[in-house]
Amino acid sequence: MSLIVQKYGGSSVADAESIRRVAKRIVDLKRQGHDLVVTVSAMGDTTDDLIELAHEISPIPDPREFDMLITTGERISMALLAMAIKSMGYDARSYTGSQAGMITDARHGDARIVDVTPVRVREALDEGAIAIVAGFQGFNRDTRDITTLGRGGSDTTAVALAAALDAERCEIYTDVDGVFTADPRMVPKAHKIDMISSEEMLELAGSGAKVLHIRAVEYARRQNVTLVVRSSFSNDPGTIVYQPDYAKEHQVEAPTIAGVAHDLSQAKITVVGVPDVPGSAAAIFNLVAQQGANIDMIVQNVQTQNDGVTDISFTLPKASADQVLRAIEAARDELGYESLRFDDQICKISLVGAGMRTNIGISATLFEALRDAGINVDMISTSEIRISIVTSAGMASRATKVIHTAFGLDGDSEAVVYAGTGR
Amino acid sequence: MSLIVQKYGGSSVADAESIRRVAKRIVDLKRQGHDLVVTVSAMGDTTDDLIELAHEISPIPDPREFDMLITTGERISMALLAMAIKSMGYDARSYTGSQAGMITDARHGDARIVDVTPVRVREALDEGAIAIVAGFQGFNRDTRDITTLGRGGSDTTAVALAAALDAERCEIYTDVDGVFTADPRMVPKAHKIDMISSEEMLELAGSGAKVLHIRAVEYARRQNVTLVVRSSFSNDPGTIVYQPDYAKEHQVEAPTIAGVAHDLSQAKITVVGVPDVPGSAAAIFNLVAQQGANIDMIVQNVQTQNDGVTDISFTLPKASADQVLRAIEAARDELGYESLRFDDQICKISLVGAGMRTNIGISATLFEALRDAGINVDMISTSEIRISIVTSAGMASRATKVIHTAFGLDGDSEAVVYAGTGR
Repeated sequence: MSLIVQKYGGSSVADAESIRRVAKRIVDLKRQGHDLVVTVSAMGDTTDDLIELAHEISPIPDPREFDMLITTGERISMALLAMAIKSMGYDARSYTGSQAGMITDARHGDARIVDVTPVRVREALDEGAIAIVAGFQGFNRDTRDITTLGRGGSDTTAVALAAALDAERCEIYTDVDGVFTADPRMVPKAHKIDMISSEEMLELAGSGAKVLHIRAVEYARRQNVTLVVRSSFSNDPGTIVYQPDYAKEHQVEAPTIAGVAHDLSQAKITVVGVPDVPGSAAAIFNLVAQQGANIDMIVQNVQTQNDGVTDISFTLPKASADQVLRAIEAARDELGYESLRFDDQICKISLVGAGMRTNIGISATLFEALRDAGINVDMISTSEIRISIVTSAGMASRATKVIHTAFGLDGDSEAVVYAGTGR
Repeated sequence: MSLIVQKYGGSSVADAESIRRVAKRIVDLKRQGHDLVVTVSAMGDTTDDLIELAHEISPIPDPREFDMLITTGERISMALLAMAIKSMGYDARSYTGSQAGMITDARHGDARIVDVTPVRVREALDEGAIAIVAGFQGFNRDTRDITTLGRGGSDTTAVALAAALDAERCEIYTDVDGVFTADPRMVPKAHKIDMISSEEMLELAGSGAKVLHIRAVEYARRQNVTLVVRSSFSNDPGTIVYQPDYAKEHQVEAPTIAGVAHDLSQAKITVVGVPDVPGSAAAIFNLVAQQGANIDMIVQNVQTQNDGVTDISFTLPKASADQVLRAIEAARDELGYESLRFDDQICKISLVGAGMRTNIGISATLFEALRDAGINVDMISTSEIRISIVTSAGMASRATKVIHTAFGLDGDSEAVVYAGTGR
C-alpha cells in the first residue's frame, strides 16, 4: 500500500465548504487503498488577520510570541479537516508541528528543519488513520518553543514528511492546475507542463515563478522526493516535478526548454565612476552584504575610454533597495565613486531548460527574437540551464510573449488565469 | 517577593485595546515587586466563532479535534498579551496548557486536572519574567492529546496554578466589581461583598450566582487558595473569597448573611398518585438518574387522606426536563402513578450565610417576610448555611428584593449592572 503526502494551501481550505470538498478528495484517495498524510495551511486570510492583530498590539511583535500566535491558523484548519474526514466515516487525527516531530532550529519566523521524527504520524498510519499535520510550524528541542518555517513553510513541511516517511510522492495542492510555461496572466497562451525536472523547477522558482517555493523544491531535490503540483479545484493530473532517479526509472524524455519566468520584484542600482582598481567592487558588495541584501545580477561595464573609472550595476530586491542606497551614499568617500543611479522599473525574464546544456543556438534564438521585437536588453546572466535578461518593466509582457513564442511554447488554448497560492 | 496568579476573562481581553489595558495593569503590579502568573481566556467571541465553524463542518464534531480547535482561542490571547507586556519593556512568556504542565485525564471537553507540574512557569518566574498561561486547556499523558476543562475551565486553571505555585492569592478578573449580595439586575440595591467564606461562595455559586464557577471555588477550597474576584475595568479591590486559615489569620468577622441568589434555570416535575409503598420513590429517582439529570430539590407530600398514594415533586435543570418526562411516561406501568405535572416557570431563591449555624430565627424572618409580601412558597430545602425556596418565576424579582431587604442587605447606592463573564 503506497503512502502519499498531500499539502493543501490556504485557498483550498478557505471555508467550511472548501474543507469538506478537500476532505472528500482525501477520502476518495483513501478508498483507493492509499495511506495518507495531509499537511494544511491556515484557512484563507486567517494568518493575515492574526498578523494584523499582532501589529495592533506592537509594531515589532516578540518573535517567540508571534510564532505562538500565527501557528494557531494551521491548528484551526487541521482540526476542522480532521473533523470533516471523521464525519465521512474515516479515521483521521490532526497533529501540530511538535506532535508530528518537525524539529527545527530556534530561529523564530524562519526556522530550519533539523530533524523529522513523525512517530505519532506513523502510529496513526499503522492504525489505518489519515494523519493531518499542521504545515509551516515546528518545535525547537532546546528552547521547547514553537517555531515557524517562514515563506513556503507548509510546502516544506509536506516535503519533509514525504522524505521522512519515504512516501511515493508529495502532492502540493494549490489553486492552479500545475506549473506553466509562463505566467498565464502575462502569456495567455502559456500551457501547463506535464513533467519538469526539479533542477529546472529550481531555476524557474528562483526566477520568479510563484507556484512552488524554491525552498521546498530544494528540499525535495536533496531528499529525492517526487513532487506533484496540482489544483484542488480540478481533476487535472497537474505537473510532476521529478528527480534524477525518477527520470531514469520512467525514461522521461524532457523537452529542451521548460518555460519562461518573469520577476518584477527587483530593482537596479548603478554605481557610476568607480575607481577601476582591485578591490573597489569587493568594497561595494561587502557593503551591500552588510545590509543583508541579496544581489542577483552584476554587470561591470567595460571601460570605454581609459579614464581609470568604471560603472558597476547590480540588481537586488526592491524591498532592500532603500537601505542599500543609503549605505552606499554614506560610504561615498571611501568608495570614491562619482554618482549613483537607481531604477526600480525593471523586469528580469528567464528562459529555463535542461536542454540548453546540449542544444546550441538557444541564446542566439533568444536575442534574435528580442531584437526583432525591438526589445532592449539591459543586463544578462546565465546558468547551465538558464538565460536571464533584464529589460524595462514596461516591456515585461511583450518580451515574455515573444520569448514564449520563439521557443514554441505557445499552447493552442488559453490557460486558466493564474492566482497566487497560499503559503 | 509574593507570587500572585491572575485570571482575565474573555471580556477583559476582547480586543487589542483591552489587551493593552490588561497588560498595563499587569506591568503596574510587577513594578510593585510581585511575581506574576497570568491565565487568560479566549478573546471575546473567539470560542463561539470556532464552535460555530466546527458545527458547519460536522453536527457532532470529533471531541479530540474539537479540543484541538477551540484551544487555539486561548493561544491567541495569551500570545498577544505576552507581546503587549514585552512591548512595555517587561519580560513575558506565554505557555500552552501542556507547556505549563496542566495534566488532565483524557475526557475531552470536560477533562479533570490530575496533576500540575508548572516547571517552565517556575523557570520563567525565576528569571524574572511574567508567565502567561492559556486557560481552559490541559494535556493527557497517555494519549498525548490536548484536552479542555469544560465550563469555568479558565478559573480552574488559575486556581490550580495558584495552588501548585503556592501563590499568595488568585485574582479572578471579570467585568463586575466582585461578588454581590444579589444579582444587581434584579436587586438594584444589592451591594458588593468585601469578604465571603469559600463555604458561602460555594453555596451561592451552587444556587445560581454566576460570577464564579463552583468548580473553581471547590478547587480553591480543597487547596486552601485565597480568591479575589474583581473587575479589570475598575480599581475596586473586589471580593475576597477566603479559606478557614485566612479567616483565623486575619480574624475575619463575617456577617450572619452573605447574600441572596436566584436560579431561573430549573423546572419542576410532580409525579401524582404514586403508590405509597417502600421503594416507589427510589424507582422514580433511579429512572431520573439513568437520564443523567441532576435532581436539586425533592418534596414528598404528606398523605392527606389514607388512600395509599402520595405525590412526589422534584426540581431539575430545564435542559434535561424533556428527556426525563419522556422516561417517566414510558415507565408509567412499572411506576403505577396517576399523572404527571410539569412546571418550567419556577424560580429558586436561596439565602446563604454562615451565621445561620449560630443565629436562630433566620428562617422565621425569611418566611415572615415572604408571607407579608404575599409570596407563596412551593418547595423548601436547606443546608447548614443555606435556605432555598421555590416560588413562581413571576415572583422572582419581588421575592429576592423582599428577602434582600428583610436581612438588611440593601446598600445605599445602586450597583453597577451585572453582565455575564467569560469562561
